[in-house]
Amino acid sequence: MKLATIRSGSPDGRLAVVSDDLRLAVDATDVAGSMREAIERWADVEPELRAIAARLESGQAPGAFHFEQEQCAAPLPRAFQWCDGSAFLHHGRLMERAFNVEPIPESDSIPLMYQGAGDDFIGPREDVYLPDETHGIDFEGEFGVIVDEVPMGVSAQEALKKIRLVVQINDWSLRALGPREMRSGFGFLQAKPSTSFAPVAVTPDSLGEGWQNGRVCMHLNIDWNGEHFGRPFGGEMHFHFGELIAHAARTRRLSPGTIIGSGTVSNESGDLGSACIAERRVIEIIDSGAAKTSFMRFGDTVRMEARPAAASKTEHGPFGVIEQRVVAAVYGNPNGAQV
Amino acid sequence: MKLATIRSGSPDGRLAVVSDDLRLAVDATDVAGSMREAIERWADVEPELRAIAARLESGQAPGAFHFEQEQCAAPLPRAFQWCDGSAFLHHGRLMERAFNVEPIPESDSIPLMYQGAGDDFIGPREDVYLPDETHGIDFEGEFGVIVDEVPMGVSAQEALKKIRLVVQINDWSLRALGPREMRSGFGFLQAKPSTSFAPVAVTPDSLGEGWQNGRVCMHLNIDWNGEHFGRPFGGEMHFHFGELIAHAARTRRLSPGTIIGSGTVSNESGDLGSACIAERRVIEIIDSGAAKTSFMRFGDTVRMEARPAAASKTEHGPFGVIEQRVVAAVYGNPNGAQV
Repeated sequence: MKLATIRSGSPDGRLAVVSDDLRLAVDATDVAGSMREAIERWADVEPELRAIAARLESGQAPGAFHFEQEQCAAPLPRAFQWCDGSAFLHHGRLMERAFNVEPIPESDSIPLMYQGAGDDFIGPREDVYLPDETHGIDFEGEFGVIVDEVPMGVSAQEALKKIRLVVQINDWSLRALGPREMRSGFGFLQAKPSTSFAPVAVTPDSLGEGWQNGRVCMHLNIDWNGEHFGRPFGGEMHFHFGELIAHAARTRRLSPGTIIGSGTVSNESGDLGSACIAERRVIEIIDSGAAKTSFMRFGDTVRMEARPAAASKTEHGPFGVIEQRVVAAVYGNPNGAQV
Repeated sequence: MKLATIRSGSPDGRLAVVSDDLRLAVDATDVAGSMREAIERWADVEPELRAIAARLESGQAPGAFHFEQEQCAAPLPRAFQWCDGSAFLHHGRLMERAFNVEPIPESDSIPLMYQGAGDDFIGPREDVYLPDETHGIDFEGEFGVIVDEVPMGVSAQEALKKIRLVVQINDWSLRALGPREMRSGFGFLQAKPSTSFAPVAVTPDSLGEGWQNGRVCMHLNIDWNGEHFGRPFGGEMHFHFGELIAHAARTRRLSPGTIIGSGTVSNESGDLGSACIAERRVIEIIDSGAAKTSFMRFGDTVRMEARPAAASKTEHGPFGVIEQRVVAAVYGNPNGAQV
């Protein structure tokens, strides 16, 4: 089953069921007003939502309309909790070299994870307002899961059963602000502005071969300003999502609608490229002694689309497409947007 | 004006207006169903809520009932954003000695702040379920503000105008888990379980002399297992709340209902005691070479109540009282609670 949130006047938007080929959608607000409400009442609403999805696939859904990814907010436009891991260890090791910090002890046995800001997620085609090019504007392509309520102390295997939806994420990062916040020990705050999401959230069963062992086994295709940047493979996650959830729930329960991220997709072999500029820059430094690639400039665009390992060129990725432009924010306006 | 959230079957509870002496309350769900809704529609609802408060003070509020702090959830039982500063520099300097870490550069000009978990706050009289005494269970008494929407790049002075409510907080901390998470650079996650709040949220104007220069100028009285522990003074904050809000909003807007915390109240002069055990332990180490005070044990209680600087012994603190017991969690139950 595929779900999306259509933008509306309300902060949580309107829930829609989306067809498997992302061409059609049906309003589902009779079942649950919003994605957030659906996640909070999942056991109640899932059968009805799946019934709508089945009617949509069989061409018998009244009120079906053309699904426009441009109309979408993030699947959860806001969440009470967003925790982002760093489960691709190769990325972490490269970043340690980039930031010139000591290797983190036990990073292959205890997941790294930061608490992110969930109050104001960015839709897949919305402009991204940021205040300063000198902050080192970078994208980070990754995957995430939206969970049901998770009890404190859950095991990694039990945690896998709490995954309701899988999502695709662009975790915007301001690289010039990161090192200071890391050195403080308090973690990322200004270095992690609002996060973007692809339009469609997918139940694990609907990903088929793309969901194995608690990992998204798909390539994440990334274009920067229309040029291919990388297509790393999500199946190489060291910790699976159940392990990440269990880490987050060790000393507290997680409320339904908590989003857990994988961290930047990254592969040991560099053949498939990277999912963020910082990683490419570190590889350049290692290879040639200096970074050649600059961070993003205002007006730049990034496009991200996850695709099955063996997909044809024409097949849509299950999460739809993130395609965004970075724009200079004007201080004093509500979201920094120019008026 | 004083507001509270009465526990109900719903995650956000029911909004109530509370009398200045905390003896009476009136249900306000006709105006806004919940505190969260009130904050999100503040300009619309504030006049009506203030009218109810005025009627309550004049003894003419239909439906007034005895206000029971025991019935309260946290003022916001969940929030889309919770960012906690460390604005009492004395505490930070002591903690650096405790964790044996390098002083953080510029900590007197750039606030320290971590992104916290807002999905599951604990009410003022609820038991606090935690998994393990060896985690170094500690309380942290502090103050916080709940803000309206804040634009990206807001100035510290403009940010002060966005403060809608002031709250009193117990920021539970697991000290044994903190150093590893700080060293990782990713910040606190397991070391900061769910946070507790006093029952009453107060508009700044209703704090009188207790709110000056963007700071809560009150003593925070703390008892541990019925014995006096400390009564440090909140007015000694190095950064005022406007500066903390501006720090959080430097690279993104803040959505309405964001909570910004002061960090543990702490004074240069040790005469008034501390607001957390960790600080007392560091002082013991400095004074005598060894920590004498242990962290909390299961069954321990902590009581926190802010009181005006010149309050009589009988006067209530404006935020009401946090009084909680720490209980061993049982893994596998929803909130770790024993069943």
